[in-house]
Amino acid sequence: MVQHPKPRNVTRADVARLSGVSTAVVSYVLNNGPKPVAPATRERVLEAVRALGYRPNAAARALSRGTADTIGMIVVDSRSPFFAQFLHALDAASVRHDRSMLIVNRDRERQSAVEQVHDLVARQIGGLIIADVIGDAEQQVIAALGIPTLLINQYGGAGGALGAMGVDFRAGAEQAVQHLVAHGYRTIDFVGDAAAIDQRERGWADALREAGLPLGRSVHASFSYEGGFAAGRAIASRATRPRALFAASDQIAIGLLAALTDAELRVPDDIAVVSFDGIVEAAYARPALTTVAQPIVEMADAAIRRLVADDAEPGFTTFDATLVVRRSCGCDDGLVGGH
Amino acid sequence: MVQHPKPRNVTRADVARLSGVSTAVVSYVLNNGPKPVAPATRERVLEAVRALGYRPNAAARALSRGTADTIGMIVVDSRSPFFAQFLHALDAASVRHDRSMLIVNRDRERQSAVEQVHDLVARQIGGLIIADVIGDAEQQVIAALGIPTLLINQYGGAGGALGAMGVDFRAGAEQAVQHLVAHGYRTIDFVGDAAAIDQRERGWADALREAGLPLGRSVHASFSYEGGFAAGRAIASRATRPRALFAASDQIAIGLLAALTDAELRVPDDIAVVSFDGIVEAAYARPALTTVAQPIVEMADAAIRRLVADDAEPGFTTFDATLVVRRSCGCDDGLVGGH
Repeated sequence: MVQHPKPRNVTRADVARLSGVSTAVVSYVLNNGPKPVAPATRERVLEAVRALGYRPNAAARALSRGTADTIGMIVVDSRSPFFAQFLHALDAASVRHDRSMLIVNRDRERQSAVEQVHDLVARQIGGLIIADVIGDAEQQVIAALGIPTLLINQYGGAGGALGAMGVDFRAGAEQAVQHLVAHGYRTIDFVGDAAAIDQRERGWADALREAGLPLGRSVHASFSYEGGFAAGRAIASRATRPRALFAASDQIAIGLLAALTDAELRVPDDIAVVSFDGIVEAAYARPALTTVAQPIVEMADAAIRRLVADDAEPGFTTFDATLVVRRSCGCDDGLVGGH
Repeated sequence: MVQHPKPRNVTRADVARLSGVSTAVVSYVLNNGPKPVAPATRERVLEAVRALGYRPNAAARALSRGTADTIGMIVVDSRSPFFAQFLHALDAASVRHDRSMLIVNRDRERQSAVEQVHDLVARQIGGLIIADVIGDAEQQVIAALGIPTLLINQYGGAGGALGAMGVDFRAGAEQAVQHLVAHGYRTIDFVGDAAAIDQRERGWADALREAGLPLGRSVHASFSYEGGFAAGRAIASRATRPRALFAASDQIAIGLLAALTDAELRVPDDIAVVSFDGIVEAAYARPALTTVAQPIVEMADAAIRRLVADDAEPGFTTFDATLVVRRSCGCDDGLVGGH
């Protein structure tokens, strides 16, 4: 790799001197405005920038930017629309505090979460967000590093040694299933992953129990379109099918819709669907998905604010989820807002 | 913000000494294995880590990691599924070179692209990928900074002062429209954004001209589900509608499908659709979208490889796009592979 000259000692004044212009003109060239610069002058300034290896702002910024200017993020899979939308909201929030996001995926290599954290720490992050399920022992090790850290979306589990935040998965799922029960459906299956620890499965079971309905089947599906599609095919091929499905994510539900459509089952007429997350895609599925929406922007804002303020104490901060009623549950457009 | 002790001078040996264990035991605790450590010992080690402000690997890594360990990425909107899938592929490729991605969105603040580049440079990136349209003057300013930089997806335009890469948008669009023409459709509209500079519009027009068909209408739609939905509503409400649509992105096409479905128009029977990008969502739309797929993983691998090798010379590197035939064009499943 070509070694570029060290930028620290070169100033805008050096560039101005070498190119025979004022520092203001250097600024106009480097910022593409606000005032126009004659082409020949412009070329001379850029030549000086190149020759000196000048990098704008680097010196001034290096003073104000220590280890705290970058916030690390470890995410299960940044392709997931929920996480893509959450990451975008984090980026929007981080800029208000002059931070940027350093993002690594859990699936990017065969490292443990703790090794990935070590790696980010070595890159001098000033805060860390982990969007994955982290065990108690791992949480203790990460906490000992002294980097402000927040966990999000821990399947609704309470935090251990690290601060955690997210919606109440159990209550949100209960609300979704209560809505299906209010439609009069008596057989309601759960479609989701990580069944043993996902509080959405518990919320589904609680709602059925409270309504005096039999527990439906819990159908395993990875958190992906493919997972939902495979689950939908399995359900469609059964001799007796449930009247309604509660899916643990919108992404799963979109896969379900594709499989049910292929099997010529109508949603919601044959099988109603309610899902979870509130990603943009849920509104453009057909039928549009009734879903328990997480407050993505609000959670992202709060996460960045807490990391910047070094206020990432242990404990779980709960956010409200909102049932967004569309068509897949059996409601008409006229009933948007719920019933 | 609480100041954490500087990590540079603290070693694993210091932690071992303070906690009265071997350095191997410190490793077992910090890496959560491979050997188990008694709870009391574990707690003592973590206490020493906390007290000393020790950060694993930081010292060793700081030597090998200069300005080159982070690759900056400026992207129009990381929520877009195409960019989310591309960013994931970049992350997977970057880890093979011990790099991580620092990602900022173009829409994150009212900064010019050049200001955002200055900002990333101040964060000591070793390479830069810009997924946005950058004018010639801006390219010259960025090139002068001496950071290896690649542009991707410049609407197929040739690069200026910076290296650029992507598929041939014109040829890909032509292939899509030729497929619609082969189905016998005589009226084919274009739905897309940035009509004046998007080479996909030119490819659409070229294919119609070559087939001796009249030029259809060019319908404006932002690159979003919402944009496609609005365009679909406008098209559905016309007195005379086209027999087929070529959409500049799968995201636009998914919005189109929703609007056409709401208007009780059948795809492909009433209006056929072919789109562009090859995102995962295209396979789970119903009907599944026939689309011109970009080689996302291959492009991401090549981009990281070139930046790491400091081989980001000006010029445009072209990748092949592939027509993936599904149902939305009018092909049956039995004809997958094209005709």
